Amino acid sequence: MAPAKVGLKPGERVDDLIINNLKLIQHPEEFCFSLDAVLLAHFASMRQNGVAADLGAGTGVIGLLLLARGAAVVTGIELNPDLADMASRSAKLNGLEDRLLILNSDLRLVHDLLPGGNFELVVSNPPYRPVGGGYISPNDRVAMARHELTASLTDIVAAARHLVKYRGRFAMVHLPERLAEIMLTMCQAGIEPKRLQFVYPRVDKKPNMVLVEGIRGAKPGIDVLPPLVVYTTDGNYSENIMKLYEQDR
Amino acid sequence: MAPAKVGLKPGERVDDLIINNLKLIQHPEEFCFSLDAVLLAHFASMRQNGVAADLGAGTGVIGLLLLARGAAVVTGIELNPDLADMASRSAKLNGLEDRLLILNSDLRLVHDLLPGGNFELVVSNPPYRPVGGGYISPNDRVAMARHELTASLTDIVAAARHLVKYRGRFAMVHLPERLAEIMLTMCQAGIEPKRLQFVYPRVDKKPNMVLVEGIRGAKPGIDVLPPLVVYTTDGNYSENIMKLYEQDR
Repeated sequence: MAPAKVGLKPGERVDDLIINNLKLIQHPEEFCFSLDAVLLAHFASMRQNGVAADLGAGTGVIGLLLLARGAAVVTGIELNPDLADMASRSAKLNGLEDRLLILNSDLRLVHDLLPGGNFELVVSNPPYRPVGGGYISPNDRVAMARHELTASLTDIVAAARHLVKYRGRFAMVHLPERLAEIMLTMCQAGIEPKRLQFVYPRVDKKPNMVLVEGIRGAKPGIDVLPPLVVYTTDGNYSENIMKLYEQDR
Repeated sequence: MAPAKVGLKPGERVDDLIINNLKLIQHPEEFCFSLDAVLLAHFASMRQNGVAADLGAGTGVIGLLLLARGAAVVTGIELNPDLADMASRSAKLNGLEDRLLILNSDLRLVHDLLPGGNFELVVSNPPYRPVGGGYISPNDRVAMARHELTASLTDIVAAARHLVKYRGRFAMVHLPERLAEIMLTMCQAGIEPKRLQFVYPRVDKKPNMVLVEGIRGAKPGIDVLPPLVVYTTDGNYSENIMKLYEQDR
């Protein structure tokens, strides 16, 4: 399908995803995607022509990258209406509105939105931080996307459990500090953690992200992958990261 | 105390631990210590003059290294009478028989052996592999030490939970593939995983060990440490490993 003419709203910009000529609409005052989303989209086991869902889809970047990796259709759920609208327009901008479907809804209501057990892959780049003592302004839209105000880890995993088919996969990027909680929550939901990769900014630093993938109904036993080191000691992107882009070209 | 004269049995040899002039009796047909034990002894949070226990102490190498790091007294439990005897004689050989106490007993009986909640630190380099379908000969003593024939992960964690005091620590080295099980078992025993480090043979390889430390009664939240890479790409020990030896000299 030829890309449609898509209008931009005030303040929005179009970014190049540097993969398959894909474009993405973003707004600097909303949550913009970062390396987390790119790494998750490449880490997840996406079968050719598979059907995937994205919980908290944001601008839709992960969905577009999964389509670039061979997904047939990706369904994204996004609560923030402005982000959901941007994601829908990005789908159109790339001529992919039939393959990237955006639902502007609450993932906690997924039981009423979508049938259970239909997806081979569910992904999520969720809010990382629990709601602490501090007040977070609903006007601070970036903070809203970073804190578990509208969906907790348990909510995300419960939604994934509803959507993913038996033997299907759920992949998530999260903070290493929450690893025990992540494993417990996934195990309790019957999604057995099977692949894990730590993302270290440099080879001498603590990891700042963990990529985890579980399989519904699998036996215990985790494959922990080689370290994903992002920068070389001289501050350039490592080969690990450069390869991600080469693969998709 | 001046080191006593200690007799060696047929086939035994005395190895130098290259730390504080410590010596260790080993037998090539029994389980000999490897890098796992050394890394665990350095990873564990050992307070100066603290009191520690070692579950499945083997030849006593971890106890000796913890004493070198400043422990006041280490109590080791070892089921294999030959290993327990070697460990006791190694303690004597180093003049440390008052500070490295070896109990030749079953750690599953720890409730009857030692009072609860007395130890600031409990460590274990346990058998890594679940008992599968295959028969393991009781004559294959190395296989016995590698498989969970006499103590499962649950047994080890239960013994640690009995021994460790409130806010005390339990540190273990294990296989990365069992990480989910390890976290679940520790959490269920009220020992919250707090520190984690993956040991990668090389920077481009999967980790072959994980070091984990939990605190009894702590809140969730894990500090995942920088990767511990063992060998450089040209096959030499990395700086990470060389530092371990320098620290102790």
